[in-house]
Amino acid sequence: MNPIWLADIVKRALDEDIGYGDITTEAIVSPGTQAKAVIKAKEDGRLAGLEVAATVFRLLDETIRFQPETADGRDVAAGEVLVNLTGPAAPLLLGERVALNFLQRLSGIATMTAKAVKEAAPYGARIVDTRKTTPTLRALEKYAVRMGGGYNHRFGLDDAVLIKENHIAVAGGIKEAVALVRRRVGHMVKVEVEVEHLHQIDEALEAGVDAILLDNMDPETMKKAVQMVHSRFGREGAPGAPEASGAPGAPGAAVAAGTGGRPLLEASGDVSISTVAAVAATGVDIISMGKLTRSAPSLDLSMRLYML
Amino acid sequence: MNPIWLADIVKRALDEDIGYGDITTEAIVSPGTQAKAVIKAKEDGRLAGLEVAATVFRLLDETIRFQPETADGRDVAAGEVLVNLTGPAAPLLLGERVALNFLQRLSGIATMTAKAVKEAAPYGARIVDTRKTTPTLRALEKYAVRMGGGYNHRFGLDDAVLIKENHIAVAGGIKEAVALVRRRVGHMVKVEVEVEHLHQIDEALEAGVDAILLDNMDPETMKKAVQMVHSRFGREGAPGAPEASGAPGAPGAAVAAGTGGRPLLEASGDVSISTVAAVAATGVDIISMGKLTRSAPSLDLSMRLYML
Amino acid sequence: MNPIWLADIVKRALDEDIGYGDITTEAIVSPGTQAKAVIKAKEDGRLAGLEVAATVFRLLDETIRFQPETADGRDVAAGEVLVNLTGPAAPLLLGERVALNFLQRLSGIATMTAKAVKEAAPYGARIVDTRKTTPTLRALEKYAVRMGGGYNHRFGLDDAVLIKENHIAVAGGIKEAVALVRRRVGHMVKVEVEVEHLHQIDEALEAGVDAILLDNMDPETMKKAVQMVHSRFGREGAPGAPEASGAPGAPGAAVAAGTGGRPLLEASGDVSISTVAAVAATGVDIISMGKLTRSAPSLDLSMRLYML
Amino acid sequence: MNPIWLADIVKRALDEDIGYGDITTEAIVSPGTQAKAVIKAKEDGRLAGLEVAATVFRLLDETIRFQPETADGRDVAAGEVLVNLTGPAAPLLLGERVALNFLQRLSGIATMTAKAVKEAAPYGARIVDTRKTTPTLRALEKYAVRMGGGYNHRFGLDDAVLIKENHIAVAGGIKEAVALVRRRVGHMVKVEVEVEHLHQIDEALEAGVDAILLDNMDPETMKKAVQMVHSRFGREGAPGAPEASGAPGAPGAAVAAGTGGRPLLEASGDVSISTVAAVAATGVDIISMGKLTRSAPSLDLSMRLYML
Amino acid sequence: MNPIWLADIVKRALDEDIGYGDITTEAIVSPGTQAKAVIKAKEDGRLAGLEVAATVFRLLDETIRFQPETADGRDVAAGEVLVNLTGPAAPLLLGERVALNFLQRLSGIATMTAKAVKEAAPYGARIVDTRKTTPTLRALEKYAVRMGGGYNHRFGLDDAVLIKENHIAVAGGIKEAVALVRRRVGHMVKVEVEVEHLHQIDEALEAGVDAILLDNMDPETMKKAVQMVHSRFGREGAPGAPEASGAPGAPGAAVAAGTGGRPLLEASGDVSISTVAAVAATGVDIISMGKLTRSAPSLDLSMRLYML
Amino acid sequence: MNPIWLADIVKRALDEDIGYGDITTEAIVSPGTQAKAVIKAKEDGRLAGLEVAATVFRLLDETIRFQPETADGRDVAAGEVLVNLTGPAAPLLLGERVALNFLQRLSGIATMTAKAVKEAAPYGARIVDTRKTTPTLRALEKYAVRMGGGYNHRFGLDDAVLIKENHIAVAGGIKEAVALVRRRVGHMVKVEVEVEHLHQIDEALEAGVDAILLDNMDPETMKKAVQMVHSRFGREGAPGAPEASGAPGAPGAAVAAGTGGRPLLEASGDVSISTVAAVAATGVDIISMGKLTRSAPSLDLSMRLYML
Repeated sequence: MNPIWLADIVKRALDEDIGYGDITTEAIVSPGTQAKAVIKAKEDGRLAGLEVAATVFRLLDETIRFQPETADGRDVAAGEVLVNLTGPAAPLLLGERVALNFLQRLSGIATMTAKAVKEAAPYGARIVDTRKTTPTLRALEKYAVRMGGGYNHRFGLDDAVLIKENHIAVAGGIKEAVALVRRRVGHMVKVEVEVEHLHQIDEALEAGVDAILLDNMDPETMKKAVQMVHSRFGREGAPGAPEASGAPGAPGAAVAAGTGGRPLLEASGDVSISTVAAVAATGVDIISMGKLTRSAPSLDLSMRLYML
Repeated sequence: MNPIWLADIVKRALDEDIGYGDITTEAIVSPGTQAKAVIKAKEDGRLAGLEVAATVFRLLDETIRFQPETADGRDVAAGEVLVNLTGPAAPLLLGERVALNFLQRLSGIATMTAKAVKEAAPYGARIVDTRKTTPTLRALEKYAVRMGGGYNHRFGLDDAVLIKENHIAVAGGIKEAVALVRRRVGHMVKVEVEVEHLHQIDEALEAGVDAILLDNMDPETMKKAVQMVHSRFGREGAPGAPEASGAPGAPGAAVAAGTGGRPLLEASGDVSISTVAAVAATGVDIISMGKLTRSAPSLDLSMRLYML
Repeated sequence: MNPIWLADIVKRALDEDIGYGDITTEAIVSPGTQAKAVIKAKEDGRLAGLEVAATVFRLLDETIRFQPETADGRDVAAGEVLVNLTGPAAPLLLGERVALNFLQRLSGIATMTAKAVKEAAPYGARIVDTRKTTPTLRALEKYAVRMGGGYNHRFGLDDAVLIKENHIAVAGGIKEAVALVRRRVGHMVKVEVEVEHLHQIDEALEAGVDAILLDNMDPETMKKAVQMVHSRFGREGAPGAPEASGAPGAPGAAVAAGTGGRPLLEASGDVSISTVAAVAATGVDIISMGKLTRSAPSLDLSMRLYML
Repeated sequence: MNPIWLADIVKRALDEDIGYGDITTEAIVSPGTQAKAVIKAKEDGRLAGLEVAATVFRLLDETIRFQPETADGRDVAAGEVLVNLTGPAAPLLLGERVALNFLQRLSGIATMTAKAVKEAAPYGARIVDTRKTTPTLRALEKYAVRMGGGYNHRFGLDDAVLIKENHIAVAGGIKEAVALVRRRVGHMVKVEVEVEHLHQIDEALEAGVDAILLDNMDPETMKKAVQMVHSRFGREGAPGAPEASGAPGAPGAAVAAGTGGRPLLEASGDVSISTVAAVAATGVDIISMGKLTRSAPSLDLSMRLYML
Repeated sequence: MNPIWLADIVKRALDEDIGYGDITTEAIVSPGTQAKAVIKAKEDGRLAGLEVAATVFRLLDETIRFQPETADGRDVAAGEVLVNLTGPAAPLLLGERVALNFLQRLSGIATMTAKAVKEAAPYGARIVDTRKTTPTLRALEKYAVRMGGGYNHRFGLDDAVLIKENHIAVAGGIKEAVALVRRRVGHMVKVEVEVEHLHQIDEALEAGVDAILLDNMDPETMKKAVQMVHSRFGREGAPGAPEASGAPGAPGAAVAAGTGGRPLLEASGDVSISTVAAVAATGVDIISMGKLTRSAPSLDLSMRLYML
Repeated sequence: MNPIWLADIVKRALDEDIGYGDITTEAIVSPGTQAKAVIKAKEDGRLAGLEVAATVFRLLDETIRFQPETADGRDVAAGEVLVNLTGPAAPLLLGERVALNFLQRLSGIATMTAKAVKEAAPYGARIVDTRKTTPTLRALEKYAVRMGGGYNHRFGLDDAVLIKENHIAVAGGIKEAVALVRRRVGHMVKVEVEVEHLHQIDEALEAGVDAILLDNMDPETMKKAVQMVHSRFGREGAPGAPEASGAPGAPGAAVAAGTGGRPLLEASGDVSISTVAAVAATGVDIISMGKLTRSAPSLDLSMRLYML
């Protein structure tokens, strides 16, 4: 993670909560009081955000000792101790809520992602996020998706091309849109096009895109789209393409290998934990889920202090 | 809402998404292209965040016309048009995702709040939020709770006193903790104490607090707590207290009226939409729900552009 | 104090003074030169701001040793050593002016507050500040008031309700204004109403406010206002209210105790050190003084360096 | 004034006061309510800060009409109308306190400066400020000094050289200190040296400085210092220097004229309104007064709203 | 360009130059003075940055009329009028230097880029920039490269993978490095590997990368690298790849077309205007030039004011 | 250098480059991997910016050891080791590009300055910079000029007066312009006037300015200007002026000495390394060169890592 940005966002979060000071703790807890604290899981899930929580306490008091007992990206069980802390009681109380707010949200995202990944795994499809993230927290939420075993779609409007319905309409067709884009963007930028109908698949293939987003198609239609593309390139890509590094069916094998020119297929449109397996079964390479970042409930954690 | 802060957070969100520029739109959509756009609800819910969305587009291009067809705090139905926009196509596309990310999250919170409020209403209990908000977005999320018909608990650590278990332990008792706090804080600050056991209620009453938070009690225990307090003060407060302005049982009547010295009773602890009615039935004045801001799913909205 | 905010404001102050660098010191003092320095009081007063001064030097050079010989909130005498410092001469010179500017201003405020507190003490009235603070430095100035023995009125427009003349006019009366406010604000927010005439007192009492601000009344009128309220509630509050923790007449006893439903009475309007005793003698609970933060002269301090 | 910086500091001040919103006004005043408002002087003084106040209201609501009836730098009388405003009532209430806080502080500084200028005028001495300003508000306070008829000493540590006691000690003498500085700084930087004893004057003259600060000398000693310098250069400067543009005795004549190589003489050290005339009478060119910015009481102003 | 970021960087630049105010202009030019101004080229070149310059003046005074007579990306000739401005003289003078500083630097980059593009064009190679940009101005400088007819390499460390010597060493080989990367990054991220020796080319091809950076190779070695790759894929890419949209030899044809799985070849290493043609002649697809942004001399422009 | 500002600009630069993280290094280099690194010169030049580079690495990881082998302001030779670093490999890779971008740019400026200084030295003229700096990096670039042996002209519009053609036109003459300025600015501000014709010299001398900028004059005309001034004051200044501390002809002697009332003469207008000697030979005191900061090519440096 970007340490400069991380310190900045944590400072903002702390400043938001502290304001003019923790008037309760200032009145009651003398500066010398020491405490230990324990952060525990209150339900099963996937952990993400330890470094964020550590940064919360480090910025408040450099003498606080923050000792993780597990790591981001690991599954945790209800009751499991995640972090032990010791230090002055006042800053421990001061940072408690902000640390938990970050940790619970990010772990909630990682947990939902892990569930989706598990559903899609048998079919070799990767789970990816979207730009439907919480404003100003995208870097953290996309990190949480990775900790859940998912992958990141583009970070913003600048790092990859996604040609949508409106762009196609303005350009006059997929081929025209792709040509306009290729004239503008550098060689390190991938180009994906969003299609809503099967007849657009051929146009997309002609245009030479890196990926095709199947927007809001039902599984049957997606299956046909997959067949159209595979019949032209083979699942592993064009003849002569480098050998795939993963075994057929392994999650993300086609994506990780590169596909020798075959555009990757991404399914999109209100996919949920209960529908993701059916979508994966269509043979798409990638499934993007806005729900991961816009509707994942927080993972329930607690922080208890013990005065020393 | 604070217009200075609002413009600032929206700028951060836009900058996060735009980065080096919308490379797709820049390549395809010429600056002169005009469009109209419609933001619609895709499911039923309570709306919150129109001013935020309006700010998104105003900051990108002052010539965009943003015309709401409804208002924050109103219920909207699937398919209902919420906003009509017209203006240059490029900034409309540029702001689309950020505007929706704000609007969906805030409306999601308002929607869950409205459900909770409806459940609690028959028992005269108010729904309030907590500090379990998304870091850096608290002002918006607390606004959304109000649009859902809920009320705000304290904004941060500085504007009200909440004496928790650890504070009581350090101070040596509720009475001692309250005394320490009263010596430190001004006359415009309310004092609430968190209790976990019934025997603490009397201690809290002796200490003269403004509110008592019943932490993680089951409904039966809560009911007893309510009786203990009412038996001392009467539901409407101390003899001689000003007359309650709301009818008995009307939502929040006791709170709104002031209770002439009787501390208000707040229920807290993992309350959900399915349990809130039972909690309200215990007779507490206030129910705080962390879920409103940490686990409300986004309300599904769409924005469609039509090139002119 | 909020450590995140404190570091931020000190950085701004240092950046303002240093600009492109201390061209005098850079030219003359080699980086290796060590020095000790002493901050002394040049007149009697109350100290406030040591942590701010410490932050100034810590941000410039972590090797500077800043050793306070007294503490915030203590009275200091002309000639008294307040702080001993040792470290590299250049950053000591660099921070000198900014550290003194903070320390003198805050100590000036604390000193005037302490004088007012002393005047009001015999009558049991608390001294409080206002929102008439130096823009962007409110947190520090309100801290200084506390170090002077005063209390803080609300921090800003968001943490408590103060219904003024204009609000009453718009609402159509005190009762209507209070009702509107109760419908909007949470249970942790106190409500104060500003009255200019005695006949408004009854209206305020009917409305059930937490405090009544007597605006620009002469002492005689204030005395009558006090009697009107006490005759209804008793000085210590409503029958059945929790016992007051302070002895009658002790400063702030009524405020600190809670008053069982009796609204507190605040005197306001151009109160100065020479008039504060007369105001306190009227029996009001609280006296707010804008002068504390808008017209307190700095406390004169000096910092001397000795090259090693 | 720097418009970029001005908007920034005003935004910070507004954000500080508004926080989560003006909960009183939001509850009572509907968005459509219009008002007019009048800012008046409550005592005589010199005005400064109209543009700051205008910026406060402009940033809150562009439709507010802010119409000054006088101008910065003018004397105003108790009761005089300074500004008429019309616009929506809510943002007028929102900006009132911040606008007054700025305007009163700056006018307070201008007022004290104007008094000092009047005292010093008969002797041809200029009044200047110091770096003893409110942290983060220096630009505004130095502006206020100019509006009072005073002049600005250096803005910070970077725009002019001021060699103090410690620098002289480290360098080994005034001459050595000046030589070190001349080797480091550009040709557009003036060099002033602080002297505490008369015998240092000759050393300063030898070193060729632009100005000499007479630190904490009594008037008699200052007079001798003036004579030492005039006897060498003449009051108007070196033979052959360009003719002074001001008549002898006119305020600041020597300064404004340039003095053909004669160093200017600045008196410094706890000068107050009551001592400034005596100091000016010694014949110094410039008198610096820290009190202007660190101890000037605010000028009392009021803002009244009238709902329409 | 990102309008939020642009306004922010221009504000910083203006604040840097203005500081406490333009003391010369404030003293001499009265607020009412109107002027017109003309920005002209003083030498031939390629223009970039008009929007930046327009933003400079818009932020200072919204009444300034900024009328471009040409456009970014166009060639301009010595003496050519680029912009006509009219408005108040003071803000025109205030913004002059900052506007020119931006415009000259960006046009200098565009001009050098245009020269390189012209040299490389006959060989069908694209010119791209690097991360060797001016800290904090990358977005502008990469924009200027595009205005010169060049293309952007990755914007930062986050939007594309570039595996360098150290990464290969740590991973234990190109194949291993690529595999590690594929497991971490999303499907919209391209992967380029830097090779220093011909024998690494095969390894890179096996690994299935999107581009190969030939680091500091002499033209002969580059030619061999090109042949190695073309012999395996053909210039236009793998059999079955979509048809190239550009004619053979047209600049960037291979890049713009997509190459059906063939990795693109990028030449890098101290390429200058005088060597770029020779490099392009080797048949590489892309030539990256750090000099574009780290050593392009400013294009000489002037701004003249005429008082009205 | 201002340490507060320095940390801030370095954070901005790092954040710009890192964005969402170094996806290449994160995927390949495990956190525990240690490395050493060497920054070397690839060409001869003058070094500037070590503290900036040190700040880059310190902000990324406090455990990195940054050990300079030389110092800012020293000449370095191709192949020379400038800095040795040891620490975790990942942050070393993360900071590499930003550190070099700063160091190369600043050293490029220092190198060109050193060349100009060497050319001008025999004639006793000082080289100074201008305001033609990279927006937002002025403090660093002016520092680099000093490291090259040059001097700083004014930092911005606020710290010195430069009366240009337009100001003269508005004021109605040099004398009038100077008089207006003297009435506005403090005694620590120098006044320079820009002249384009010889006949303006006398007017400038009459006005009593501190320096005269000879704008775009050819060497012959400059020589005449020098003679006009010297004939009036003597090279060393007015009779009775303090003795010059430098020997005649030593670089900057007249400037460093002060000149007893004689205005300094500055040559300006597209001076380059190849023309600077001829300009210096005219006898001017100061030569300002915009090219130093707007067209100096970066000094080529490299940073190599060795994994441990």
